[in-house]
Amino acid sequence: MARTAGSDGEKTEATIREAAVNLIARFGYEAMSMRQLAAEVGVQAAALYRYFPTKEELLFTLMREHMEGLTEAWETARPVNADPVQRLSAYVENHITFHIERRHATHVSNMELRSLSPERLTQILRMRTAYEKELRTILRDGAETGAFSIDDTGLTAMALIQMMTGVIVWFRPGERLSIGEVTTRYLSMTMRLVGAKIDAYSAARPFGRAKDAAAF
Amino acid sequence: MARTAGSDGEKTEATIREAAVNLIARFGYEAMSMRQLAAEVGVQAAALYRYFPTKEELLFTLMREHMEGLTEAWETARPVNADPVQRLSAYVENHITFHIERRHATHVSNMELRSLSPERLTQILRMRTAYEKELRTILRDGAETGAFSIDDTGLTAMALIQMMTGVIVWFRPGERLSIGEVTTRYLSMTMRLVGAKIDAYSAARPFGRAKDAAAF
Repeated sequence: MARTAGSDGEKTEATIREAAVNLIARFGYEAMSMRQLAAEVGVQAAALYRYFPTKEELLFTLMREHMEGLTEAWETARPVNADPVQRLSAYVENHITFHIERRHATHVSNMELRSLSPERLTQILRMRTAYEKELRTILRDGAETGAFSIDDTGLTAMALIQMMTGVIVWFRPGERLSIGEVTTRYLSMTMRLVGAKIDAYSAARPFGRAKDAAAF
Repeated sequence: MARTAGSDGEKTEATIREAAVNLIARFGYEAMSMRQLAAEVGVQAAALYRYFPTKEELLFTLMREHMEGLTEAWETARPVNADPVQRLSAYVENHITFHIERRHATHVSNMELRSLSPERLTQILRMRTAYEKELRTILRDGAETGAFSIDDTGLTAMALIQMMTGVIVWFRPGERLSIGEVTTRYLSMTMRLVGAKIDAYSAARPFGRAKDAAAF
């Protein structure tokens, strides 16, 4: 990770991470052995341990990088000087796009928290909480300005996150809907769920299918 | 299962199932061994195989019984001669209550589909599809009568199911909200999401904390 960009070491590390995500998503973390992973990558087990001294170190790295990637994606996508409706739209779009593109890594991050040591679990949960807090802040700001009508900010944030992340359970590229179409429909459902005013919502939507937005 | 109700054999089988759900939820199906399960239950491994000839048979039984339980609970909860708003309310309440009470079994059912043989996977998915179809029918009926305003029935059904099942990720009994309070808030979000008329919704809600109580 502190290696020169594009070096052989960095490429090997990336290959290991990708193979690990796929193996864990397929068999579960506890069932995957470092020996099996080394065979999959085509290196000696000893080589693997140079990159990841322990199996848990590997798992932690996968989860930390997943959350760092999500946080960075949101920092890039987050609109400046925008109203709550625009910010919520950006959050939904970023969240769905990020997770659809990383289905296996999302699966691993959600399912294997049980195998982290307490200190590492705390680190990952802290990153998650910070990311989810961004959504709660948007919802609270929207409720305060009257743009949204929300009973329970914390619960609404959790419901939205589960609903959005759940896309990876059923979405497969190349089927009925594109990622963009899925996102548009989830945006519409999100705006209804938070009781957004239809005018504010339509005004904030740069993309098509305004006729979707029907009654709230 | 064809044994006399309450017999020793039936009790042992129930104990095995419960221990298996907990072990799989903790370590994953692939990592759990029948030997480990036998030790947990306090029987010889040979005894275990009398109930479940293979590990996959055990997994399949856990998943089939989970889906049968869900389907039976819905058949009992489903209101007769009710309008779409009442039917949707009953579906949401039943879905959330059932899953909150079976957090580990839900976890296993959602995560370990990957380990079923193709024929058994097909059986489980068929049961799921039938259960989800009930929700799609309610949404479609509501859209046709004008009670709901929905863009995409299939997508809305998936979004609602992920949102509702997601409750098990963060809900813990004895914290801020009771199951009844969580359900009430999720009902409110659901009705907004499907564009239900708020009056129809309020009028259709006879319940308050119907059946918080006994775990399975």
